[in-house]
Amino acid sequence: MTDAPEHFLCDIREGIAVVRLDRPDRKNPLTFDSYAALRDWFRALRDNDQVKAVVFASNGGNFSSGGDVHDIIGPLTRMSMKELLAFTRMTGDLVKAMLNCGKPVITAADGVCVGAGAIIAMASDLRMATPEAKCAFLFTRVGLAGCDMGACAMLPRIIGQGRANELLYTGRVMRAEEGERWGFWNRLVPAETLEDEAVAWASEIAEGPNFGHMMTKTMLQQEWAMTLDQAIEAEAQAQAICMQTADFTRAYDAFVAKQKPVFEGD
Amino acid sequence: MTDAPEHFLCDIREGIAVVRLDRPDRKNPLTFDSYAALRDWFRALRDNDQVKAVVFASNGGNFSSGGDVHDIIGPLTRMSMKELLAFTRMTGDLVKAMLNCGKPVITAADGVCVGAGAIIAMASDLRMATPEAKCAFLFTRVGLAGCDMGACAMLPRIIGQGRANELLYTGRVMRAEEGERWGFWNRLVPAETLEDEAVAWASEIAEGPNFGHMMTKTMLQQEWAMTLDQAIEAEAQAQAICMQTADFTRAYDAFVAKQKPVFEGD
Amino acid sequence: MTDAPEHFLCDIREGIAVVRLDRPDRKNPLTFDSYAALRDWFRALRDNDQVKAVVFASNGGNFSSGGDVHDIIGPLTRMSMKELLAFTRMTGDLVKAMLNCGKPVITAADGVCVGAGAIIAMASDLRMATPEAKCAFLFTRVGLAGCDMGACAMLPRIIGQGRANELLYTGRVMRAEEGERWGFWNRLVPAETLEDEAVAWASEIAEGPNFGHMMTKTMLQQEWAMTLDQAIEAEAQAQAICMQTADFTRAYDAFVAKQKPVFEGD
Repeated sequence: MTDAPEHFLCDIREGIAVVRLDRPDRKNPLTFDSYAALRDWFRALRDNDQVKAVVFASNGGNFSSGGDVHDIIGPLTRMSMKELLAFTRMTGDLVKAMLNCGKPVITAADGVCVGAGAIIAMASDLRMATPEAKCAFLFTRVGLAGCDMGACAMLPRIIGQGRANELLYTGRVMRAEEGERWGFWNRLVPAETLEDEAVAWASEIAEGPNFGHMMTKTMLQQEWAMTLDQAIEAEAQAQAICMQTADFTRAYDAFVAKQKPVFEGD
Repeated sequence: MTDAPEHFLCDIREGIAVVRLDRPDRKNPLTFDSYAALRDWFRALRDNDQVKAVVFASNGGNFSSGGDVHDIIGPLTRMSMKELLAFTRMTGDLVKAMLNCGKPVITAADGVCVGAGAIIAMASDLRMATPEAKCAFLFTRVGLAGCDMGACAMLPRIIGQGRANELLYTGRVMRAEEGERWGFWNRLVPAETLEDEAVAWASEIAEGPNFGHMMTKTMLQQEWAMTLDQAIEAEAQAQAICMQTADFTRAYDAFVAKQKPVFEGD
Repeated sequence: MTDAPEHFLCDIREGIAVVRLDRPDRKNPLTFDSYAALRDWFRALRDNDQVKAVVFASNGGNFSSGGDVHDIIGPLTRMSMKELLAFTRMTGDLVKAMLNCGKPVITAADGVCVGAGAIIAMASDLRMATPEAKCAFLFTRVGLAGCDMGACAMLPRIIGQGRANELLYTGRVMRAEEGERWGFWNRLVPAETLEDEAVAWASEIAEGPNFGHMMTKTMLQQEWAMTLDQAIEAEAQAQAICMQTADFTRAYDAFVAKQKPVFEGD
């Protein structure tokens, strides 16, 4: 799955996949092809044990300018409803594939991070940015609604309903400093070290327990709309499963031996 | 619907309705009549295409002191359960009507913004206040519970569950600076310019795309308790609908012509 | 129920129960026995009218180090799935019992507040800490998932989804200052006055209206996964019930008499 995908770049080293869009001259817009390729790649990732974490990186000083005006928006204005729905479902499927890939995804955003680019950041588990990063959910600027690829569900839970409303109605830029203060960006780091720090963070997380991380990711999504009673029962089951992994025993044995545990993912 | 309502003030200019309570000598309490009149007005707004955004403004230096002690609380202490439920449902219906009116509502709060006044602010899409604004969910102070007009559902999603708990159990004032820091107020502005800035913001948003804004508002509410998968599918449908509006094409055409799009709401 | 429980300390004075774990030499780990005893105590609390609020306090400079490595984790590595599920359900039942006890619970955390200790803080209604408090959801450090006792449902609603992700994947310490900024801690106070301030706050809240507080607590949980329409109707019913309590009339009478209301809880 991960060898030389078309339509985006992917580099896998020591369990960390670094992916990035590859049209830096145009600030890395998404195209029909790159949407589909990313969706397929994240879907395949679910059953891939070699990759333990993903960094979605920037390229040439920008993360992504979102759906390309010429390659995507132009054609959309001429499509039938059937074709439009096929497109919006494909974009939603990218988010679903990211949510279901079973591995933590870290966005490392420099420069422009807007439209579908902002959605990719939002659909990641962890988010780093440079102080220069400009993030905007600018669907309203192209005549559309703020409800794109799950934004009305996810953004309010990350930064709060009132701040999400503002970004979604106005399409204005969320400055990096705001984004950190509001809990959108986990960390701000200089552009020079952004990718290295993201890879370092991913590597730390990739040390495991990877079965546990997969379960954490699964449950964060599963419990989204459960009652509290349901969520507590769901976690009782999920954690009981994790307690039968060898990594749990490895952690205990390491503790008793006063060593750092070495997790193996099973 | 919007011509000279009774029980509150309404001024409509260039697509922006500025509404306000009209008992400034008593800090603008709500009464049975003004609750009902506001509910009816927001309900009628749904089918009104002339108003594109609403500013809920202050009057005489205060936003609202909530349900009037003499006109409302006194009578409530003598009502039957049937009458009480009719009242609490009417107040809840005001919130529902605001949520379903299809237009962004901006609260512009100066001075006292408490009880049902705080709820009106909470049920708005965007919120501005002066540094002097005092917001309190003070139901507990009158012997009641914090669960009023949707507060236990909405406030935690705006400012977080822990901070909402504190305000709802204690009824204490949330200072303006706190409210900005916690994401309740989108902006703090001086009293002198509060209303002008709110109207200016409303006017900006009213430039459209208004069909898109209506859909954003709809989906923010619709997706409240959906699973993520459901929300993503719902947005695929909603955005596909928006892609068949003329405003979407207008935005594309304007972009190609290097002009600013002029939206018309269809 | 509340007289000298085994496995933890409990001191009840003037309507405030101060509970704390009692192994300060080991930073107050939880054991199978203390889990069960706390669960039973909070369950019984539901029908106890003498206790009006609870302070979950620290002991010897620490709140809790979570599930004991020797007494709990060791045995868990040797259990059958049936036994494991019985254990994870018991821990979840402690959270459910806290949520359903009908009284506000205030955590007062000094020092170590990790693992199941962090969960107890999270499951409280209000949270105070010292600047030295170290809170960590460190399940991942022992080879497990972040989904423990409801953490993946509750933590995102308190501090936001992005920050919760970080704490749950990495297990890192949330510093006290961060926790205040993020809305996890309602207040930071010096260790010398922590418990006194927590008891003072509990006493203030315990002045009532206690039926109202019980209803606030109930609805904050009930509305967790409701639609907005459902939540607004649920609150119309809940608040109508509160309007038939004598405390509501007491508040009105006191207001008219320009006095402070004295609530009696019915």
